[in-house]
Amino acid sequence: MARVRVHNFFVSLDGYSAGETITLDQPIGGAERLFARFDGRFIHGLDVMDEPITLDRALTSTWGQGIGVEIMGRGKFGPQTGEWTDEDWRGWWGDEPPFRTPVVVLTHHQRAPIHFDNGTSFHFLDATPEDALAYAQGLADGRDVRIGGGPSTVRQFLAADLIDFMHLVTVPITLGAGVSLWDGQAEVQDRFTIESATSASGVIHHFWNRTIRD
Amino acid sequence: MARVRVHNFFVSLDGYSAGETITLDQPIGGAERLFARFDGRFIHGLDVMDEPITLDRALTSTWGQGIGVEIMGRGKFGPQTGEWTDEDWRGWWGDEPPFRTPVVVLTHHQRAPIHFDNGTSFHFLDATPEDALAYAQGLADGRDVRIGGGPSTVRQFLAADLIDFMHLVTVPITLGAGVSLWDGQAEVQDRFTIESATSASGVIHHFWNRTIRD
Repeated sequence: MARVRVHNFFVSLDGYSAGETITLDQPIGGAERLFARFDGRFIHGLDVMDEPITLDRALTSTWGQGIGVEIMGRGKFGPQTGEWTDEDWRGWWGDEPPFRTPVVVLTHHQRAPIHFDNGTSFHFLDATPEDALAYAQGLADGRDVRIGGGPSTVRQFLAADLIDFMHLVTVPITLGAGVSLWDGQAEVQDRFTIESATSASGVIHHFWNRTIRD
Repeated sequence: MARVRVHNFFVSLDGYSAGETITLDQPIGGAERLFARFDGRFIHGLDVMDEPITLDRALTSTWGQGIGVEIMGRGKFGPQTGEWTDEDWRGWWGDEPPFRTPVVVLTHHQRAPIHFDNGTSFHFLDATPEDALAYAQGLADGRDVRIGGGPSTVRQFLAADLIDFMHLVTVPITLGAGVSLWDGQAEVQDRFTIESATSASGVIHHFWNRTIRD
């Protein structure tokens, strides 16, 4: 059965995963340091680069395995808010978005889909988490769904108990302020079986698997 | 550049990775307990089974990423020794060998290749590690080469300094006797940068990356 998964989700020691305001210069809203150790090229597998295969890299590389669609919040797609005044904006990633699958962008403002040659397409949707998930599964060809962030988006799916698996990464820095996955999520851990492992780089990887219910 | 990788290579606390004699009933030569925690279905990725995604599973699933060919010793292919008196033997795996790529089987005894519908093929070769690697790379379509074991085979490639990466797994059991990767390999660790991580299941994962030389 297809699952709903979160991968490579970075969290600071004080619990933040993004800054408050996304701008062109600050795509993580000022929390860019969370991604300082992250090499985005590693998501596509162990063979794409002649760099050491560390624990961090091996785990990063599971991001795309068996994934047929991503759901992301509008802030991950770009810095615009409100009506789409700039339809030339096609995301942060240029002509080669790394997703290589359909991507559902949650927004209250409709817009026509965007298609790229590498298999990536963006589909704009105004929907609840449940309805967005059903829509995304229709695009996933039976494969798993990744919830791509940012933290507010993951939090909504978590609150709706729609997440089967989360790979969280505690990064040993403090941010002081920002957006947290955990706001209003007291006791969320009770629904999961949790394992953690420390890597030589100083980050801690957490594997949250939703406990199967009767 | 394509690399030479070892994955999911199990080692007991006393250093053994297989028993001495392969038989039909004992494909690991009596060291089958080393594989008790190993679910072979996990090698194909995170999506193939609705089981928790643990650290062990995530790392197991990197086995096939970017691999274009495997090289294995004859004992991994089957229990026969000497001349191929039973050419009906097509490996331990039935009609669906898990490899899904060409596989080079090292043997002093020639035999015609075997092809399966799922992309697996077995090619029998009598060659030094260097020559076997060159032959395998010709079948790999530019992808990485996996050295699949058993321990004597990995040891030969290690002694020839042909291994770029090893994912070793220390299993907390003792075997008392068997075949070891380490025989005659004193100081081999000096050629590698080594990281290790303990999983909740009690195994220890080791990542050996060959240190790049000037």
